[in-house]
Order: sequence, then C-alpha cells, then structure tokens
Amino acid sequence: MSQINVGIIGFGTVGAGTFELLVSNKEIITNRVGAEVVVKKVADLDTETDRGVHVDQSLLTTDAMALIDDPDIDIVIELIGGLDTALDYIVKAMEKGKHVVTANKALLAERGRKIYQTAKEHGVGLGFEASVGGGIPIINAMKQGLSANRIRAIMGILNGTSNYILTGMTRKAFPYEQMVREAVEFGFAEDPPTLDVDGTDAAHKLAILISLAFGSPVSFDEIYREGITDLTPEDLCYANEFGYSVKLLAVARDLGEYIEARVHPAMITESHILANVNEAYNAIFLEGDFVGQNLYYGLGAGRRTTASAVVSDIIGMARQIHLGNKGIASPLAHERSPGKDVRIQPMESLVSPYYFRFSALDRPGVLSKIAGILGEHDISIASVIQKGREVDRGVPIVMLTHEARESDVQKALSSLDKLEILTDRTIMIRVEAP
Amino acid sequence: MSQINVGIIGFGTVGAGTFELLVSNKEIITNRVGAEVVVKKVADLDTETDRGVHVDQSLLTTDAMALIDDPDIDIVIELIGGLDTALDYIVKAMEKGKHVVTANKALLAERGRKIYQTAKEHGVGLGFEASVGGGIPIINAMKQGLSANRIRAIMGILNGTSNYILTGMTRKAFPYEQMVREAVEFGFAEDPPTLDVDGTDAAHKLAILISLAFGSPVSFDEIYREGITDLTPEDLCYANEFGYSVKLLAVARDLGEYIEARVHPAMITESHILANVNEAYNAIFLEGDFVGQNLYYGLGAGRRTTASAVVSDIIGMARQIHLGNKGIASPLAHERSPGKDVRIQPMESLVSPYYFRFSALDRPGVLSKIAGILGEHDISIASVIQKGREVDRGVPIVMLTHEARESDVQKALSSLDKLEILTDRTIMIRVEAP
Repeated sequence: MSQINVGIIGFGTVGAGTFELLVSNKEIITNRVGAEVVVKKVADLDTETDRGVHVDQSLLTTDAMALIDDPDIDIVIELIGGLDTALDYIVKAMEKGKHVVTANKALLAERGRKIYQTAKEHGVGLGFEASVGGGIPIINAMKQGLSANRIRAIMGILNGTSNYILTGMTRKAFPYEQMVREAVEFGFAEDPPTLDVDGTDAAHKLAILISLAFGSPVSFDEIYREGITDLTPEDLCYANEFGYSVKLLAVARDLGEYIEARVHPAMITESHILANVNEAYNAIFLEGDFVGQNLYYGLGAGRRTTASAVVSDIIGMARQIHLGNKGIASPLAHERSPGKDVRIQPMESLVSPYYFRFSALDRPGVLSKIAGILGEHDISIASVIQKGREVDRGVPIVMLTHEARESDVQKALSSLDKLEILTDRTIMIRVEAP
Repeated sequence: MSQINVGIIGFGTVGAGTFELLVSNKEIITNRVGAEVVVKKVADLDTETDRGVHVDQSLLTTDAMALIDDPDIDIVIELIGGLDTALDYIVKAMEKGKHVVTANKALLAERGRKIYQTAKEHGVGLGFEASVGGGIPIINAMKQGLSANRIRAIMGILNGTSNYILTGMTRKAFPYEQMVREAVEFGFAEDPPTLDVDGTDAAHKLAILISLAFGSPVSFDEIYREGITDLTPEDLCYANEFGYSVKLLAVARDLGEYIEARVHPAMITESHILANVNEAYNAIFLEGDFVGQNLYYGLGAGRRTTASAVVSDIIGMARQIHLGNKGIASPLAHERSPGKDVRIQPMESLVSPYYFRFSALDRPGVLSKIAGILGEHDISIASVIQKGREVDRGVPIVMLTHEARESDVQKALSSLDKLEILTDRTIMIRVEAP
C-alpha cells in the first residue's frame, strides 16, 4: 500500500488532537484516501510535555525546518498560530512544493493574500477548514457546495467563548465578569479572553468567509468590531422582553458596489434559527441567490473538533495525491476579476433598527427630552419599556427604534450622553432584521 | 477559453432551474471552473411547454440518446426521476465515459449499488448533491468535511412537505387534511403527496445518507417507515405540554454490529436545535466521534434551491476536467471492507421512550387498567396528562413512558386496543432523547 507522509508543526492542543485522530481513525482514513496517511515528523519547541497521546520519540523534533526540508513529507500542517513565524514556515513549505494545511485564522485574515499567492505560484494546495467554525465544514461548503451561488449575506456566531458567556448571562442572569471566570475555569477560554470577547477572533473568521464569498481577500482593519464587554444581564433580559436574543454576530452583506463587514453584539428575533444557537456552539447562516437560506452549526473549538477539520483537509489532499491528480484549484476556489476589489462600506452608513438602554433620572419630561433629541437625528421610536423602578444608576428607559442610520445614532448618543438627566452611558445594540 | 459541455435530460422544474442558474450565474461559474460551462443539449419528451426560461430551440431534443451519444458532451445531468428509464440513461452515459449528475433519490436508494459499480468500472464521476436536503450541501459535507469521523448518529428532517404540514398543525392547530390541502395549493406538495407523508421520500434520503456514512449501500426495504397521516393537532399540542416538538424524523444510529435505520414521527425536546426547524425547511443533525454534533439546515426542495445543488456538482466536475485531473474518487468516497455489510437492526429491538394517547371511557379504574397492562409488558410510565374532558371518542389519557422496547410496546398496544374501555385506536409517537 502506498503512503502519504505528513509533518505537523505545533504540538499544542490541536496538534495533539490531530495526531490522535490520525491514529485513532486510521482505518477510516486509509479507506477514504486509498493510501496510508503517516505522520513522519512532529515539530515543537517543547518536546517534553505530555500531550495525552502516545508519540514515538523518534518523530519529535524541535526543528521545524528539518520537517519542511524533508523530501518525503507531502503535506505540512501548521498549527503553531501567530503571524510571522507561521507565515515563514508556510511560505517555505510551499516553496518546497508541499501542500499546506493550517488552522491559523489570524494569519489568513491578516496576511492571506501572500499565502494565496504563494500557493498559486508553486501549484500547491492550501487547506484551512479548521480556521473558521471549528469542526463545521463551512470552508468546504463555500468552496464547493454553495459554489453556484452569489452569496447575498453571511451572519455568523463565530466565537464559542462569547456565545458561552452570553448564553450564561441570558439564562442564569450572571454578570459578564462571572461568566468569564466560569468560561476560563471550564477551559473554554484563555485568561483573559481578550480576542474572544472584543470581537477580534470573530472578525478574523469573518474576513476569511468574506474572501471565500467574494473571491478576494479583504483589508482586515476595515472590518468594524465591537465586543460584548459592555453588555449586562439586564440588557439581555430586556432583549428577551422585546422577543430577541443577543449574540455576538459577524455580518457581511453584499450591497453591490460595497459590502457590509462588521462584528458586534446584535439582537436576533427568537424565532430565527440563529437565536437558538447556544453555549459554546458556532453557526454560520448564509443566504445565496439560488440556494436561499442555509445554516451550518457545530462546536467552534476544541481539540477533537478542530482536529476533525484539519484531518478532513489532509484526507482531501492525500486522496488527490493518491489519485495522481496534479491540478490544484486556487485557494479561494474562485477569484474576483482584477480591479474589482471588495470594498467595505464605512460603518457610519449602516442602516438598522437599534436598541437603546438609557439610565435616566426618575423625573417628569425625561422620555420626551430623549425622544426629542432622537427625533432631531431622524431616529424614530418603535417601542419603549419604562418600568420606573429605582436603581443605583438611575431608572432604565429601554427602547427599540425603527431603521436609523449609524452616523445619526452616534451623533444622537453623543448629544444625549452630555445631558444631566442621563446618569450613565447609554447602551446600544444593533438589531439584525430576521 | 476552453469549454465544458453538459447535457440535461429532463426539463421539468429542476431541469429548468438548472438551465436558468447556468445562464444567470455564468460569470461566477466560469470564474470557479476556469472554463465556460455550456449546455449543449436539453432532452425532454415535451419540448413545447414554456418553462419560464429562454432556451434556444436548437438545443431541445426529444431523444435522450442523441445527447448521451454526443461525443462533445462531458457531463450528463439526469433529472427525469423514476427508476428504470433513468437507470438506463445513467448507465449508458457512464459507459460512454461521461460524468453523471443526478437528483434521483429513489433511484440511488433503491438501485444505488448498480450505479456506483458502473461509475467505478468506467472511471467516471457521480454527483448527487441534489438527492438529499435540496440545496443543503450535505453530501459534500459527508464525503469531505466530516470525512475524518466515524459517524455515530444521523437525525434528519428530510421531507419539507411533511415538515410544512406538521408546522401548520402545531402553530395553527389545523387538522392534517387541511394542511395537506394548503401544501398542495401553495405548490409545496403533489396531490396527493403520498410519498412525502408516508415516509418513503425521507427513507430514500436516509438510505443515501447511510450509504455515505457507512461506505455501503443498504437494503432500502429494511428501513422502517411510518408516516404522519395518523397525527392530530391534539397530539402535537400534548407534545408541546411535555416540552417537545413533533417532527417526521429519519434516524440512523451506529450500534456496532448493527445500525438503526428508521423514519417515523418523533418527539424532540424543544431546546434541541432540530425542534426549531420549521415550515418547508430541512435539516440534518449528525454526530461524529471527533467533530461532535453538527447541523445543516436549508430549504429541502424547490426549483432554484435544487438547481444550486445540481450546479455545485457540475462545477466540481468541470473544474477537475479543466485542471486535467483524471483520477476519480469512488462515488461514496469510501468503501466498507468486503463482507462487512451494513446490517439494519430489526425495528422490534428499538429501545426508546414513548408517547401514548389513549381514548378511553370516562370511568373509574381506567388508568389503573392501562398502567397494569403496560407494566405487564415492562413499560413504566414517566408522566401522565389526564384532563377528563368529554369528547366524542372518549377521554384522552396522554402519557410519556421511560425507555421501553418496541416489541413490548407493540404487544401492549395490541392487548390494550382490544379492551372495551378504549374507544379508539391508541396513538403512539417515539421520543428521540436529546
């Protein structure tokens, strides 16, 4: 039986999970590839720590270049994360004619263009199924299953830690800080989970989905991002009263000349299937011009889950090698015509309904004052909850608006927050129409 | 620019949708394939009816064989449905070295072995993304995205018409017959929609998913199937009171030596994401040993939706042709070792909780009598709703049991239905544990 050799750079959580999967499901994998997939080398600076999986010591090396230079290795798996070193290894491996599999979303989002270019120049494959949505095969769906469609919209719950925190805040009414501690203790989150909760991680993944949808990398810095750190259980409870759930949502929408690209907390109607995605689960909701609405759901992270995605890429490449197929499709599976770059609409132009929670003095005329200033900025109110109960920081006045423009909202809030009748900063959550 | 030629056999709803998509998204498709995809011939017995799409008359033919014999055609799309003629065309096209795309679930479920064999013998590709779940790229996910996993369980809402009917019966409390009329009027369903509501259509699709999960076709006739025709809005309402939704569910589960394979109405806990799949939507919930739980959701039928799946197969094949890749993976993407056929567990051995609705005389001792007979058959009651209201056909006694064996349930119901205190046949719904 012939043999396809792989080398793994980075023997952390996902590296060890990948090794474990390749050993544990060897029969299935051999059957699907038609050849044996063998791990020839594993490179990590730390070759001592027990990873919970038996590895023959002779496979381990601290020298990633030894692996990249090994002429017997067909596929290099980059799982070290980070930007510069990882990019260097990937480029060098491709220059040696090796196919590359990576789970590195930050690298693809911020330096994707260089990697896609290098893969094309050297005629090698690039697998990155594990970079978005953990085990959910969304990359494959966008490259192949939905390939006949013009993608109109993407709405994703792309960060499991944030979703876990928001689910707990909603169900148990725990404050944000307490849910963060719980997520860290249960091993869902880093301590502190900055990139998870500030929207950066979700924005990295959104950048990758956008590049697949539109056939071109985007400028990551232009993606608007806002995290969940300002939300309170109170807001999530009011959202429920209005019939919505709150999720950290990554949104892209094709507007023709521009696209929307943004990550922020968003209210979703409870009957929408995305509103029912809870705990550490991820989901990607897509709208295509022919397929209509689709949703893909699964665990967004974890050793075994992510390994499932990494190994699916290995199987796909190994099968092609075994079949003798040398033609390689471009990494994004299509390419936008030159000069037709994807342009991101400035956030100020967004039009959306909004949720506001004002903390106000319990005094006559307050609501009329607020409504007046909103009106001056072309923001009209759809519904209000004002319960008049006394709390430390003033009485909450909660409202949903009709569609308004982000720039108007920002101006209105900035005027309002200067008023003495408002005792605390106003909380704003955008509403995604179902 | 080079050109890949396709021929379409069957110019009904899906055929016309496929043609429309190939024209309407030509730029996207060319971009993804690297070559132009051109419809060279369209064969249908009826070349007169207006299909709502402009087709050059010179493309139309009533002679499918002229299309199959055309040496310029690379890919043949079979969209006529039915068994014998479709099989004949597919086999002949493969013998001519053509790749085949089909949406024919009945044919794959009932004669798949012959088709897979023929494809392998002639080294041609077989695409059948459109056969299950309409536009949901579930075939692709199982062949590629989840390929590293041992599939433990599949639970699918695979028939949109049934789901539409059950959603209406639940939300509007309309009786079954009224929802059927509505589904027919709105064009969701054939009149009468026999294969949709009796579970046959879902069982066809389940057979295909099983063959992909386990690498071997199964004997279609061994899949247990039961439809939704006996359900009443009353039962759906009681199910809600117990915290469940009722769906027509296709279930497969890996038990080691055997698999479960069955289609029947099932109660699903409301917090389960499958319980939130409503209207004409389909969804497939899968559990893999590494990926964990995944869900794929989208419209299960319709002209444009199904065309999306057909054309994704065309794009995949055309891209390989254009890249010069001649190696073709086997149709199911893996194959069970010889002698290890998939064996379906007889339905009598199923173990599950059950819902019963008895119609009983409003008389003392009735519940005790029923419970006694259930107890004799090792069936223990988990909870009961007995409201004592008078209705024509007796008082409803509704209960959920703990786990019981199907054979015991069948025996108990058969004894119970002979009792004079029961005024109508007992309704039974199996409960799928979350």
